[in-house]
Amino acid sequence: MTAPLADPLPHEELGASWRSGRPRPAGRHLDSAACSRQSHRALEAAAHHARHEAELGGYVAEAAADDLLQQGRSVLGGLVGMAAADVAFVESAQAALVALLTGWRLSPGSRVACLPGEYAPNVAQLRTYGLRPEPLPVDGIGRADVDAVARLLADDPPRFVHLTHIGSHRGLLQPAGEIAALCREAGVPLVLDAAQSLGHTDVDLGADVVYSTSRKWLAGPRGVGVLCVRPALAAQLTPVLPEPEGEPPMRAFESGEAHVAGRVGLVVAVGDHLAAGPDRVRARLAALGRATRELLDDVGGWKVVEPVDEPTATTTLRPPEGVDVVDARRRLLVDHGIVASAIGAERAPGELTGPVLRISPHLDASVEDLEALAAAL
Amino acid sequence: MTAPLADPLPHEELGASWRSGRPRPAGRHLDSAACSRQSHRALEAAAHHARHEAELGGYVAEAAADDLLQQGRSVLGGLVGMAAADVAFVESAQAALVALLTGWRLSPGSRVACLPGEYAPNVAQLRTYGLRPEPLPVDGIGRADVDAVARLLADDPPRFVHLTHIGSHRGLLQPAGEIAALCREAGVPLVLDAAQSLGHTDVDLGADVVYSTSRKWLAGPRGVGVLCVRPALAAQLTPVLPEPEGEPPMRAFESGEAHVAGRVGLVVAVGDHLAAGPDRVRARLAALGRATRELLDDVGGWKVVEPVDEPTATTTLRPPEGVDVVDARRRLLVDHGIVASAIGAERAPGELTGPVLRISPHLDASVEDLEALAAAL
Repeated sequence: MTAPLADPLPHEELGASWRSGRPRPAGRHLDSAACSRQSHRALEAAAHHARHEAELGGYVAEAAADDLLQQGRSVLGGLVGMAAADVAFVESAQAALVALLTGWRLSPGSRVACLPGEYAPNVAQLRTYGLRPEPLPVDGIGRADVDAVARLLADDPPRFVHLTHIGSHRGLLQPAGEIAALCREAGVPLVLDAAQSLGHTDVDLGADVVYSTSRKWLAGPRGVGVLCVRPALAAQLTPVLPEPEGEPPMRAFESGEAHVAGRVGLVVAVGDHLAAGPDRVRARLAALGRATRELLDDVGGWKVVEPVDEPTATTTLRPPEGVDVVDARRRLLVDHGIVASAIGAERAPGELTGPVLRISPHLDASVEDLEALAAAL
Repeated sequence: MTAPLADPLPHEELGASWRSGRPRPAGRHLDSAACSRQSHRALEAAAHHARHEAELGGYVAEAAADDLLQQGRSVLGGLVGMAAADVAFVESAQAALVALLTGWRLSPGSRVACLPGEYAPNVAQLRTYGLRPEPLPVDGIGRADVDAVARLLADDPPRFVHLTHIGSHRGLLQPAGEIAALCREAGVPLVLDAAQSLGHTDVDLGADVVYSTSRKWLAGPRGVGVLCVRPALAAQLTPVLPEPEGEPPMRAFESGEAHVAGRVGLVVAVGDHLAAGPDRVRARLAALGRATRELLDDVGGWKVVEPVDEPTATTTLRPPEGVDVVDARRRLLVDHGIVASAIGAERAPGELTGPVLRISPHLDASVEDLEALAAAL
C-alpha cells in the first residue's frame, strides 16, 4: 500500500483549483459516482436564482434566466455532439429515460439490447413500458464485445440498443463510439446512459440519444438531468402535451414545474468543467483511477475489479472473505471520515455476484487521500 | 375602483410577518397560483443543505437530514389527513400524478371522472396512460354538482374520480369533502389534485390520494412535490422498483436522484405555514380574494369570473372586448411592476372560452397592492 505510484498524477493545478473552488470537505470525499461536490460558484448561482424567484416571481425569474439556460443547453449539447434545440432539462437521469420512453410509445414487447450488467432501475423502467430487455454480448468482465454486437445487429436487430456508458457498479468504459458506428450502419437507434460518463469521459460519440444527470461528474446540483435527442429521433416522439408552434420539439419534454435554480447551477458547473478543460479533466480522472487501483489492490484482502489502466476514475473492490461491505463503508465514514459507496448486488443483478465497495474520486482528490483509504482498509 | 372595502383584511399581523420574513419583492407579486415567494428561512435551509452536500457528500447529507425529512412527511401528511408513511416526496404535482398512474397500472380504457374544466396537462397524462376521462357533472360556473355526482357514482361508477380542488384557471373551490364522502360510500377512489389548494384551504377531506406541489401556496421551493396515498390504495400500487423490506411502501415512489435541498426547504416552509396557523392563513387568503374581486370587477371593463365571496385567494378576469390578455399581463409587469398570469384557453379547453388574467395574492399582499392593480387596469 505504500509502493510508489508508477506515474505522478497529472494536472495537479487542476486538483488545486477544483479544491479551492468548493467548500472544504468534512472528510475525504471519494464518492463522485454517487454525488459530487458543488463549487461555490454553482451553489451561489442556484441560491441566487432562488432568491431572485422570491423577489421577481418564479416565472419572471425564469424568463430572466432564459439566455443563460439556453447557453447551458448549447454547451451541454456540445458535450454530446448535439445542438441546443436537441437538449431538454429534466429532473434526473431516470426522469430522462421516463420522458424518452413515454414519448417514444414503442409497441409492448419491443426488444431492447442492453448490457447484462445494466443498472437495475433502467431495466425496471424498460419493463414498465412493456419493453423486453435482451443481453448485449460481453466479454468476461462485462465489456461489450464489439464483433458480437455487430453480428447481433446484422442477424437479429433489436428495436434499439440501450448502453450504459460507465456502470454505477463497475468503473468500466464501454466502447460506445464503436457501438454507435455499428448502430448507425444497422439503422438501430443507440440510447446512451451517460449518467456516469458526462463530465468524466468523452460522450460525443454519435449516439442518437444521450441522457445524464447533473450531480455526478459535472458536479452540478441534485434534482437536475438532461435528455438529448437527435432531430430524426425527436421527430418520432409524441410529448404528453405538444409545445406551442415555433419551439424546438424537445422543449415539450422539459418539465415546467422544475428546479430551475438547479438548472442555473448546472449551467455554471458546466462552465467550470469547460474552464478546467474536458481533456485535462479526463486525463486526471483516468490517472486517479489508475492510482486508486495501484494503491488498493490486495490491500487488506480487497480485490480491484477493473483493469488497472481503465480510463475512468471509478474503482470497485470485492471484499475479503467474511467482510460485510455495508459495514466496511460505514466504518470508513465514521472512523476515518472517508466517503465511499457500498454497492449491493441488486444494483446490477445480471452481473454482480456480491456487493462491492466503490471508490470514485473527483479532480480534487489526492494521492494522500487514497493512501489514507488504503491505510483504513 | 376606490369604493371602500366591505371588511378590512383580517390578520394584518400575518401579512406583516409574512412580508418581513422574505426578500423584498421587486414589484407587486400577485401570482402565488403560479409560484409563491419563499421565506428567508426556507431559502437558507435549502442553500445550507446544498452546501452541506458539498461538505459531507450528497448521500451523507441526506442521511443527516433524515429526521427533518421524516418530520416533513409527518406534517404534510397531517395537512391531508394521512400519516408520514403515506407521504412520498416527488419532483412536482405532475410527477406525483405520473408516479401514481405508473404504479396503479389500471387497464387501458378505464374511465376516470374529472371536471370539464380539468387542467389540460392532467387530462393529457390520463390519456397517456390509456385512461378515458369523462366529465363530472357541474353547474354553470364549473363547480361539481354534488347530487348529480351522487347519481353518477350510483348508476355508472368510473374507475376513479380525479378532482382538481381549486383550478389553475379559475379560483373556484370544489366541494371535495362532499365528493370524498360520496366516493367512499360508492367504493370509488378519489384522487385530489391539491396543487392549488394545499396551504390555501383545508385539504383534510378524506380523499384516497392527495398530490400537490411545494412552490405555490406553501411557498416552498420549485422542483418539489408530494404524493400522499392511503394505505389501502397504496397496497394496490406496484412501484417500478420495490423498496427494501421494512420501508413504508410509499417510499418506493420517492425518487432517489432528487432535489433533496428543496425538500428540506419545503419542510421549513411547511413549518412557516403551521406557525402562521392554517385557519388564519385560510381566512386571510379568502379575504384577499374577496377584496380582489370587489376592487377589480368592472374596472376598465374587466369582469371577475368567481363569485365575490368564493373562499379562495385566486381571481380571474375576463378581458374587455379587443384587449389581449398576454399583452395586458406584460404591460402590468413592465409598466407597473405587477406580477400576474395570463391564462390561455388551452389550459382548460373544456371550460375556458378565452384567455383570462389571473390575480393570486399571498398573505403579504395589501389592499394598496390591489388598488395599484385596479389603477393599472
